[in-house]
Amino acid sequence: MSGFYKKLTNSWNKQNSLLCVGLDPDVDRLPKSIKNGKHPLYRFNKEIIDATAQWVCAYKPQIAYYSAIGAEIQLEKTIRYIKSEYPAIPVILDAKRGDIGSSARMYAIEAFERYQADAVTVNPYMGGDALEPFLCFQNHGVIVLCRTSNPGSGDFQQRVSGDRAIYQHVAYLATSHWNKNNNVALVVGATYPEVIKEVRQTVGNMPLLVPGIGAQGGDLEGVLKNGLTEEKNGLIINVSRGIIFASEGSDFSTAAARQAQSICKRINQYRSI
Amino acid sequence: MSGFYKKLTNSWNKQNSLLCVGLDPDVDRLPKSIKNGKHPLYRFNKEIIDATAQWVCAYKPQIAYYSAIGAEIQLEKTIRYIKSEYPAIPVILDAKRGDIGSSARMYAIEAFERYQADAVTVNPYMGGDALEPFLCFQNHGVIVLCRTSNPGSGDFQQRVSGDRAIYQHVAYLATSHWNKNNNVALVVGATYPEVIKEVRQTVGNMPLLVPGIGAQGGDLEGVLKNGLTEEKNGLIINVSRGIIFASEGSDFSTAAARQAQSICKRINQYRSI
Repeated sequence: MSGFYKKLTNSWNKQNSLLCVGLDPDVDRLPKSIKNGKHPLYRFNKEIIDATAQWVCAYKPQIAYYSAIGAEIQLEKTIRYIKSEYPAIPVILDAKRGDIGSSARMYAIEAFERYQADAVTVNPYMGGDALEPFLCFQNHGVIVLCRTSNPGSGDFQQRVSGDRAIYQHVAYLATSHWNKNNNVALVVGATYPEVIKEVRQTVGNMPLLVPGIGAQGGDLEGVLKNGLTEEKNGLIINVSRGIIFASEGSDFSTAAARQAQSICKRINQYRSI
Repeated sequence: MSGFYKKLTNSWNKQNSLLCVGLDPDVDRLPKSIKNGKHPLYRFNKEIIDATAQWVCAYKPQIAYYSAIGAEIQLEKTIRYIKSEYPAIPVILDAKRGDIGSSARMYAIEAFERYQADAVTVNPYMGGDALEPFLCFQNHGVIVLCRTSNPGSGDFQQRVSGDRAIYQHVAYLATSHWNKNNNVALVVGATYPEVIKEVRQTVGNMPLLVPGIGAQGGDLEGVLKNGLTEEKNGLIINVSRGIIFASEGSDFSTAAARQAQSICKRINQYRSI
């Protein structure tokens, strides 16, 4: 197994969790107690991480929340904190990058070397050669958008060409062409549990990152029923706002812990059936 | 006309150029005279900009070259320099962003507020609702990937669904749905001049950003023949490495100027036929 697959599997097992917490610290929603002072995003994340670490298999910072306000250093500090305090928990940089040649290589360096992320999300629209500069980082995960959770995802992903829809073609290429280094995973939204079933059939045990539980109203039970592998894992179920903004008061970290525990347990109940 | 369309049209006319220079300052390829010292990417760009400004209609910094090495401040300084010294020349941030809801909004803020770009490139894979947070910045351009210049672009963009390929569907939605604020443009690679013809027929006078001349071997004459509007503009023809690394010695800026002038003139010869 590649570095990322191995680290993720260890984390699923050791942490006994499939829950990923999205670190999307919208600066306008931070508690007052955090907002003032230096590095508020980092201080917010740090408290969230300490409060939730026992219930998660991964953390997923969304880079736009940092880059919009020039807070790259706080993202670096956040990832460094996870790596030093919770080294077994993988960090997925949610960046949805996609470009060709040397630009793609620069994005891979950004994710894997600058930020030291274990995995990065990427966009397949430009084709397989645009993914290559990411895929060749053998020990890092490359998580390709397949079927996203938003309503407009049908505009292109659902269009049928030949015997399959575009998102099915992503799943097909992911298994047949892109996964030579055993480091590919796919994004499939929780809002389409029937798609998760189909994709799981195509990709075998490949990890699926599943956003859309929580704020977007995805169906947790449907996701688990359709997406779990025989080993009762294979899923990285992401919740962002539903956990980190469970309370916007000064009790935000205990509220986050309560939510993370509750979702982790609901997932595990289903896994133990 | 929207702020971006207007600024671009003025620039085409006043500068008498359709050439865009890509500011992709790969730190490993910078001339020795620039490499040492503070802010090498910015100092390199500044010399390139001063040397080429009379031959261009736009500049297009590719963000990965900056973010890979934590040089966001040099990107900010570069854009600020263009805006203060050459305020009539639009700046296109090449970031190929794509995400949903509040993350997309953060990316739009990154491009238009933090970096003060006039336009940004975006990826359509996630669908129309993912573009909305960009499109609603009425005075800024949103340049959507349609048919990219790389060999693998056929993996998805060329797949035919119903009566049209995916890239044709992008062109169709761009005109029929996304352009309510008159601020949409499309990326179509110079490596597919016949595609430029088709897309031009679908989108009318919508601006097309055309990469792939130069290093990627695109066909300049084919691009012009198929892509020019009746007003003999409508194209933003991008060249990056072929200009900025025309020489890697200390004469890099004069070599860049020579190349920019030569390409601009070749384009204008064709426009005057």
